[in-house]
Amino acid sequence: MDATQVDPEAQGNGLTIDGLVTPALLLDEGKLERNIERLAKHVSGLGAVLRPHMKTAKSIDVARRVFPGEPGPITVSTLAEAEYFAESGFTDITYAVGISPAAAVRGLNLSRRTGANVKFLLDTVEQADALGEAGKKAGITPSAFIELDVDDHRGGLKPLDPALVDVANRMKAAGVELAGVLSHAGESYALNTREALVAAAENERVATVKAADILRAQGHACPIVSLGSTPTAHFSENLEGVTEVRAGVYMFFDLVQHGVGVCTLDDLAISVLATVVGAKPEKGWILVDAGWMALSRDRGTASQEVDQGYGVVCDEKGHVYDDVIVSQASQEHGILALRPGSTKTMPHLPIGSKVRILPNHACAMAAQHDFYSVVNGDSPAIRARWPRIRGW
Amino acid sequence: MDATQVDPEAQGNGLTIDGLVTPALLLDEGKLERNIERLAKHVSGLGAVLRPHMKTAKSIDVARRVFPGEPGPITVSTLAEAEYFAESGFTDITYAVGISPAAAVRGLNLSRRTGANVKFLLDTVEQADALGEAGKKAGITPSAFIELDVDDHRGGLKPLDPALVDVANRMKAAGVELAGVLSHAGESYALNTREALVAAAENERVATVKAADILRAQGHACPIVSLGSTPTAHFSENLEGVTEVRAGVYMFFDLVQHGVGVCTLDDLAISVLATVVGAKPEKGWILVDAGWMALSRDRGTASQEVDQGYGVVCDEKGHVYDDVIVSQASQEHGILALRPGSTKTMPHLPIGSKVRILPNHACAMAAQHDFYSVVNGDSPAIRARWPRIRGW
Repeated sequence: MDATQVDPEAQGNGLTIDGLVTPALLLDEGKLERNIERLAKHVSGLGAVLRPHMKTAKSIDVARRVFPGEPGPITVSTLAEAEYFAESGFTDITYAVGISPAAAVRGLNLSRRTGANVKFLLDTVEQADALGEAGKKAGITPSAFIELDVDDHRGGLKPLDPALVDVANRMKAAGVELAGVLSHAGESYALNTREALVAAAENERVATVKAADILRAQGHACPIVSLGSTPTAHFSENLEGVTEVRAGVYMFFDLVQHGVGVCTLDDLAISVLATVVGAKPEKGWILVDAGWMALSRDRGTASQEVDQGYGVVCDEKGHVYDDVIVSQASQEHGILALRPGSTKTMPHLPIGSKVRILPNHACAMAAQHDFYSVVNGDSPAIRARWPRIRGW
Repeated sequence: MDATQVDPEAQGNGLTIDGLVTPALLLDEGKLERNIERLAKHVSGLGAVLRPHMKTAKSIDVARRVFPGEPGPITVSTLAEAEYFAESGFTDITYAVGISPAAAVRGLNLSRRTGANVKFLLDTVEQADALGEAGKKAGITPSAFIELDVDDHRGGLKPLDPALVDVANRMKAAGVELAGVLSHAGESYALNTREALVAAAENERVATVKAADILRAQGHACPIVSLGSTPTAHFSENLEGVTEVRAGVYMFFDLVQHGVGVCTLDDLAISVLATVVGAKPEKGWILVDAGWMALSRDRGTASQEVDQGYGVVCDEKGHVYDDVIVSQASQEHGILALRPGSTKTMPHLPIGSKVRILPNHACAMAAQHDFYSVVNGDSPAIRARWPRIRGW
């Protein structure tokens, strides 16, 4: 270890952001808790259960802020996440990616090993057969959702597709329990008006409930009606017929969600702390030690009304500098500059100065780091160091 | 551990790609060795030393293929890399990112701890003062390059900028040894003709040698004249006055380098192995379990003549499927489709089939993974598992 390296043992023991090796991923605990409470209240107010998606945080410490006591329910995007959370005591886990035969074997082994109820996702009779076969070998009755396509986003079956009932019947024949139907209104990320978002949420609800009704009319119980995306979860006004809502990025929020209109800049809970390592005054550039390796290559705001470059730049306390963005990024360099057309002037930031950079996409920025340095508001104190997992 | 998880102990013991958890990062050892030999021969043939950049591979096993015996010289992009390679026996390390005061302290601590000769990079008098001060505290005479800007790419001083001599003089006054001058023709990535690349290499050479001549005329020894980028390193025809060449992505190559014209598709040494998890025949889509988390968000070919989406798709043995690319990527899903305007038909890939996906940008794809599964040609055998490092 060296003078500037964070000592994992030293977490909370007087360490401040000045003692962090940069670039460093910061997580504001106060904003995290505010974001968690906001959606929890909204969803419970509409009579549904929230099944948070852990693919953004990938951290047991964050999960425990969402569930101070209960063992879930949670959603995961990889079996590595399922194993990590199951081994940490979470017992109700939906693996929301269509399964392969190998994933079915691995997921059922996890259920057998930990007793966790791991639910799968599928939309073909081939997957139903593979999951049924894996269940027989494992001596477990597998449980799976049928994936729905409610907005031409990605995978899944249309509610009126005859294959919906065919797959449900095949699951029954293969010895796979139908957990319910699951949809994700991924196209809602492209919207940016309240009216459009409310309509997308209602479309997601109507289509998902319709699929459940069709299956029930054919004698399938279909107990769970699951839907969600961070934008539709926040703009839903009616969840009649829905049993659970899924969302993940809502815990941290990001510039894409800000562009959609789901949050304010002040709600963004993560940022990358960077150090100034150079300048090109004649070009209006300040160079920092955070490039795409720390910020991610995500440019999600490029297709929005306001392109935020590789991120919005704040001072070391987290206060936004008007019009200053990361205009370019290479592997370990970021170039800070004013947005095109700005009449502001660049802040004075000598070599060694610190800045915080807000993410285009929280899932992508966080994935570039192995731990969160937990802060609160504009205090420089590091309250804790929370590890995160990666891989598959 | 579970049925499908690779057992690190099992590396090379009969494991095949069918036993890998997907998505998995594959490295073709034969292509790696061919790429390493190609540039080594070219640079030595022009009378210079090659100082490979380890920011792409970040692996001691790859470094040992480049240097079967010698302890370098190498280039790194983070102090975490410098520490990793120094602790693995590499003694001649250039940290090619402009230093902050904290990085100077940490880098000198590494030299003191391991005896490694760590050279720094700077382009301001403030950095010269900070490095000199850190050297006095550490009881070491620091050595640093002055960074040059030869093509308006990023940081560095123009050869004719009076600040060049000012910084060298300030280094002398501050007790910092001038290792030499260092440039990187980063704009060469935007070129795609032999003529333009040869000209960019010669421009990089002339500008860098000119800066060294100016410093020497002012009484500064300037022993090392260092330049390089993967495109200019391969297209250089004359290295007169140059002592060393730096390049990193050349070990693996990628679709961006292919678009520039530096390599063929068959030279690409890394790929992501993915499993088919769904299909949308009506849209011509096949869904795989490799999204941007495994492929990275890098879209470097989007600005080239041929946009390769999120990557070019090959069969499980690595043979390219004509016109099949990853057209869209979400966190853990990739959508395979024909490129716009193609008259080909999609391959038949049932659920559970494997494909290999070639990277837009090798540095970015590899950074999403913790290890390489080493293969050779179209054999399914996993020859070894090579870890990589990350973080800062």
